[in-house]
Amino acid sequence: MSAVTLNEWRARIRTELDSVVDFWLKYSHDTVHGGFFTCLGKDGTVYDELKYVWLQGRQVWMYCRLYRTMDRFHRPDILEAAKAGGSFLRKFARVSGSGSDPWKCAFCLTRDGRAVKIQRTIFSECFYIMAMDELSRVTEDKDMQLEAEQMMEQLIFWVREDSSGLGRPQLPGDVPTNSMAVPMMLLCLVQQLTEGRGPEAELKYRELSSWCVEQILQHVQRDGTAILENVSVEGGEIPGCQGRLQNPGHALEAGWFLLQVSAQRGDGELQQTAINKFVELPYECGWDKEHGGLLYFLDVDGHCPTHLEWSMKLWWPHCEALIAFLMAYKQTKRPELLQRFSQLYEYTFSHFPDPEGGEWFGYLTREGKVALDFKGGPFKGLFHVPRCLYMCERLLDELLANDE
Amino acid sequence: MSAVTLNEWRARIRTELDSVVDFWLKYSHDTVHGGFFTCLGKDGTVYDELKYVWLQGRQVWMYCRLYRTMDRFHRPDILEAAKAGGSFLRKFARVSGSGSDPWKCAFCLTRDGRAVKIQRTIFSECFYIMAMDELSRVTEDKDMQLEAEQMMEQLIFWVREDSSGLGRPQLPGDVPTNSMAVPMMLLCLVQQLTEGRGPEAELKYRELSSWCVEQILQHVQRDGTAILENVSVEGGEIPGCQGRLQNPGHALEAGWFLLQVSAQRGDGELQQTAINKFVELPYECGWDKEHGGLLYFLDVDGHCPTHLEWSMKLWWPHCEALIAFLMAYKQTKRPELLQRFSQLYEYTFSHFPDPEGGEWFGYLTREGKVALDFKGGPFKGLFHVPRCLYMCERLLDELLANDE
Repeated sequence: MSAVTLNEWRARIRTELDSVVDFWLKYSHDTVHGGFFTCLGKDGTVYDELKYVWLQGRQVWMYCRLYRTMDRFHRPDILEAAKAGGSFLRKFARVSGSGSDPWKCAFCLTRDGRAVKIQRTIFSECFYIMAMDELSRVTEDKDMQLEAEQMMEQLIFWVREDSSGLGRPQLPGDVPTNSMAVPMMLLCLVQQLTEGRGPEAELKYRELSSWCVEQILQHVQRDGTAILENVSVEGGEIPGCQGRLQNPGHALEAGWFLLQVSAQRGDGELQQTAINKFVELPYECGWDKEHGGLLYFLDVDGHCPTHLEWSMKLWWPHCEALIAFLMAYKQTKRPELLQRFSQLYEYTFSHFPDPEGGEWFGYLTREGKVALDFKGGPFKGLFHVPRCLYMCERLLDELLANDE
Repeated sequence: MSAVTLNEWRARIRTELDSVVDFWLKYSHDTVHGGFFTCLGKDGTVYDELKYVWLQGRQVWMYCRLYRTMDRFHRPDILEAAKAGGSFLRKFARVSGSGSDPWKCAFCLTRDGRAVKIQRTIFSECFYIMAMDELSRVTEDKDMQLEAEQMMEQLIFWVREDSSGLGRPQLPGDVPTNSMAVPMMLLCLVQQLTEGRGPEAELKYRELSSWCVEQILQHVQRDGTAILENVSVEGGEIPGCQGRLQNPGHALEAGWFLLQVSAQRGDGELQQTAINKFVELPYECGWDKEHGGLLYFLDVDGHCPTHLEWSMKLWWPHCEALIAFLMAYKQTKRPELLQRFSQLYEYTFSHFPDPEGGEWFGYLTREGKVALDFKGGPFKGLFHVPRCLYMCERLLDELLANDE
């Protein structure tokens, strides 16, 4: 692949990133109650006013990350939007007083911030922490950083000590499992909380970081031939659909998380595992050889998954795969990794972006037709698309700088 | 439509019913732990051993109903299967002792009956009641009938007095709504508990029956031009996606429930409302004019629904629509209703049954291709298909008998 191609990719990616950020700046801000609308139709129209806490946190994080690390986004309007989102989250996301643990966050809120629903998982809290930590970096608000770290302690307690505060009833048939999302999210938070904060912070989370990596690696199963989404807490395979489930996009996302850790540690073995098992393998298993694109779910034994959307093509696995292959290439310079990136790039950019209404479609049929035409929804906000474009732009910057 | 056509339909339906029942008799029985496997692949293979309580209850109910009311199913193997399923349910479905109300049932169980998951709704309990009441009719077990009636009292309390026993946290933004499923299920249970039990039973549930009908009728919105799945407890429209949601299959199912009530009461006005608003209207709004078949979800204002499966064609709305149109025709003899039945029949019988592996596929793409190829899953058991075939066979019997 020539530098000309890399340059072309970078130019397109940069344009897309600008356009996607503009879309959310234009359509998603609630200037009355604060926070962000995330249910945005094809043309940006708000079609539902509920405020999903995952997406509020992610949007604050993304704005701050762009503001802090990319010159062209270091703009007062972006900082103000992030601060407004952060205030809304701090004011309304936590639902203490409802009998649950004091750090528990709602899953979604009314437009004016009243809790509608609580999930019995840790993810609302994860994105709250990401938002608070990144916002504290641009505002230099130490209280906010402390709040993020305190909530992180609560999360670690729920995951590693006692999950009863999450509100799930204890049932005799509900055996605890190692679900890939949990160590992935914790590892992502460790990266967030330690970045640039020196050896003390690194030391504080070192054991947790290792634990997360170990937990993620437990998902390599069947003599290294498959990544399974759910394994037992002992790292073995569990029976039934849950145990056979594969989520290639998720494995690919874990792949680039592991690649980041391997680079920080200078751990070549981890790098190799990350590339072979979490980047190349999920691609092989998830790529739809008939229609192109990555399938959403698979069953390792070839049964039909029970998720109705198993064969759909979703935006976020493609976003995560783009980052994973470009990062793997940057670290190793193996040309076949760039070749895969190119293939993914072709599929992604020819199917997901909407040149008319702006932003990207999120949900395609197996054949690649738009199945749901909104730009934001309960699970699609300002996150996977801009994070992918941001990461890829920076990786291409580094690759092109080294070429010169 | 000639009697020849009705006869042809009846013959096909009868054959299908026999074949579908055979499929479940052959593949779904767990002779070791009791109860039924419901996750059955294309060829009947068990691909997951979890036992879903909704589906356990429905299968017991269906076996008993066939045994009790159709001569050719009045067979000892069917009775034994129903009894075995009933024992499993009675032994394991209720999860008292877990801190919840003593009548709360699990949503799913391990193969050997340990609770895996509890839903914070009333539906597991509804199907438990249906199973127990119908089983008590064939076994003449009065204790079982009493148990069904006692659980019914608990359900009514949860729905009409205090829902806190269901385990949902009270949240300030979680405004109670009238969700169509609730009065529909209660009305179905009233029909079940009163059938053939004389004026005393009818009197006991008369007020509840009227309340259910009234609650269902509240879903007629927008000057009678739309059935909305969720309305406020005052019977008004609620904002956002939840308020705009339409589920045509569900409305059609409510339609034939209302037609049954109208026939019992001799209530011509209710009959007309049922046909115009709950049978013809949902068909008009839900029929896919491009590809045929009924869409799963719609948004009354034309936004894209946020359910990823909104445009898929599922088996059960087609089953419910067949019953609704045939019953409406039987009651009124309006030829256009039989014309619609014919159209639905064509689509359904040319798309869902699997002549190779037996039983019906459940989930098609919008274009009508099989998207998930299993015959049973977490939400598909021995219920909608055989109930539809059973009801349609009987309706055709009656129509043909009257013709003679």
